[in-house]
Amino acid sequence: MAVSPAPARRTPARSSLEDSVRIESGAVWILDRRVFPNTTAWVRADTAHDVARAIRAMVTQSSGPTFAACAGMELAAVQAAALPLAEARAFVRLAGEAISQARPTNIHPREAVEWVLEAVGPAASTPDLIELAVDAARAFALRYTARSRALGQFAAAKLGDGDRILTHCWMDTYLVELVRAAAEAGKRFEWVATETRPYLQGARLTAHTLRELDQKVTLITDGMGAAALAPGSTLGRIDALVTAADRVSLDGSVVNKVGTLGLAIAASAFDVPYYALVQSPDPAASTGEDITIENRDPAEVLSTLGSRTASTLVTDAWYPAFDLTPPRFVTAVVTDRGAFAPADLAGYFSAPDFSASHPVHTPRKESAAP
Amino acid sequence: MAVSPAPARRTPARSSLEDSVRIESGAVWILDRRVFPNTTAWVRADTAHDVARAIRAMVTQSSGPTFAACAGMELAAVQAAALPLAEARAFVRLAGEAISQARPTNIHPREAVEWVLEAVGPAASTPDLIELAVDAARAFALRYTARSRALGQFAAAKLGDGDRILTHCWMDTYLVELVRAAAEAGKRFEWVATETRPYLQGARLTAHTLRELDQKVTLITDGMGAAALAPGSTLGRIDALVTAADRVSLDGSVVNKVGTLGLAIAASAFDVPYYALVQSPDPAASTGEDITIENRDPAEVLSTLGSRTASTLVTDAWYPAFDLTPPRFVTAVVTDRGAFAPADLAGYFSAPDFSASHPVHTPRKESAAP
Repeated sequence: MAVSPAPARRTPARSSLEDSVRIESGAVWILDRRVFPNTTAWVRADTAHDVARAIRAMVTQSSGPTFAACAGMELAAVQAAALPLAEARAFVRLAGEAISQARPTNIHPREAVEWVLEAVGPAASTPDLIELAVDAARAFALRYTARSRALGQFAAAKLGDGDRILTHCWMDTYLVELVRAAAEAGKRFEWVATETRPYLQGARLTAHTLRELDQKVTLITDGMGAAALAPGSTLGRIDALVTAADRVSLDGSVVNKVGTLGLAIAASAFDVPYYALVQSPDPAASTGEDITIENRDPAEVLSTLGSRTASTLVTDAWYPAFDLTPPRFVTAVVTDRGAFAPADLAGYFSAPDFSASHPVHTPRKESAAP
Repeated sequence: MAVSPAPARRTPARSSLEDSVRIESGAVWILDRRVFPNTTAWVRADTAHDVARAIRAMVTQSSGPTFAACAGMELAAVQAAALPLAEARAFVRLAGEAISQARPTNIHPREAVEWVLEAVGPAASTPDLIELAVDAARAFALRYTARSRALGQFAAAKLGDGDRILTHCWMDTYLVELVRAAAEAGKRFEWVATETRPYLQGARLTAHTLRELDQKVTLITDGMGAAALAPGSTLGRIDALVTAADRVSLDGSVVNKVGTLGLAIAASAFDVPYYALVQSPDPAASTGEDITIENRDPAEVLSTLGSRTASTLVTDAWYPAFDLTPPRFVTAVVTDRGAFAPADLAGYFSAPDFSASHPVHTPRKESAAP
């Protein structure tokens, strides 16, 4: 029997993973990305410390911890309602410390905490502190998305209509905004996604989201990247390697999910451009040496989605969550202020500041909570 | 409670996977390496055509198909006992065709088939044909192991005592012989093994065998190779990348399990030598272009050990079983006649022929079956 082709899918307004953090019933709820999309489950965090534990346990990753940090700070402020101002202030500060220390490499959750703590500085009463904190936390989340949108537009401008893009791990908000910016610019991409062991963020989160956004995506294992980038592969031409970066130092060293380095070296060897996406370089990191690379529990390497996949005779494994790609393998760092060659990255700080003109940049006491 | 350290383990005479193919009860039994070591199961092949199907289905890989080919040819000859000579000859030839066509990239199973078919040329009767075929099949298997031993000795000579070796996928007989040759030379290595998706040969077969041989092995995911090779990694220095090769062309292009290319490029970028192990280059392949790269069922990429691991929205994947590493990324090809720089590989054919002086090189009718 002949099968009719499925009707063309429309790009949905939002992909599922854009709704990954909620505040409801006096708690922060975080979508458990360790099991999504095969299972949709939410982890309840009753305190900011629970939020920190969830971030450390990889319940959410990529942009997720930033949104969770904002929600955790909002929750902490609300939970301080019965405390005198000084104690409320200390309560929120401790909440922020827990969140800041959850994972060391990506700095956006720490920025969110600092943003909120700075905003509550002038508070004259506990209700005042709560309002300032809630406004600031929500503003930071909105600003993060707005900066990702700007970044997505600059990234889309570097790519051509019909380009096939190799990506690694899970770019989260950057990915969604890049796809949207491309659509707005009349460009359509095809994607090749690595599965990204050990957590399989590529096979689960990236590939799922790209399909939800009506993108064509081909999944490969982490070892196939170089073969995909090599000229004449049976997969067809790859036009660019595009990944997010958890942190970029001022010399253009890119720290991102482990596996990025190997792909970047292979891309360089085969003259495929590599674009690393980050809202801004880290002014506190002169070189890659200044960035802490988190080593996670090696046991994760021995299993896949909770089932042992390695021989039980094996006890030793190594799990650096990130690797560092030296600037010589990076074509451009794409930020919310444009694309910069690694050597020109200092120019970021004198470039027009997108977020300065954005209404949510400066949280103001009088802004109404949404 | 204090736990006593386990007593020092002795290197066993044989690792489990050296016993992967048996002839028993009128059938070939092939250890199912798709599930080993978590499950020890044997696939029964009642005919050489069953053997071919098992090879195609990845019941066994690396050196396994060569031993299975030998066993399949022996089985076919024995099953031809009731046939007149001409029909017995045709029966064995058809068996050989099936085995030769099972998978296209590695040529040793085809060589085994050709070796047996050539040996039965002078047969004057069906019993004669059976004896010649059985002798030849067993001789080829012994010769394969002996050539692997020579290769292992030449490889061990390239490496230093205490070296830490990164390997990919499953070198099988080459791995075991390399470890033994090193022990005989008073050298001890440490190993870093990639897990090798989608079949996880590294996590299951390589890591398991190395532990059985009392080697220290650290498991990594396929994306971590470049991070491991980079200077200053928290894993510590890697001294060499060593893999088997399914085929090497005369220009020194190395075809091996997909993922090898990315590791070789990264090793080259960080000045770590890459040694590719193959008994001999393929005189019929001038360049890598002459080697067929098998594309396998992409569905394998969407699952892990039989369980779906990718989002169910994903339908497209790519699974090239092998990749081709250009000679500029290869330090040396180590053969059963010594190590050759890729550019000098033609020298293999004028080098002293190890196997010519080996007693099992020429199968002789009068040699007793073991």
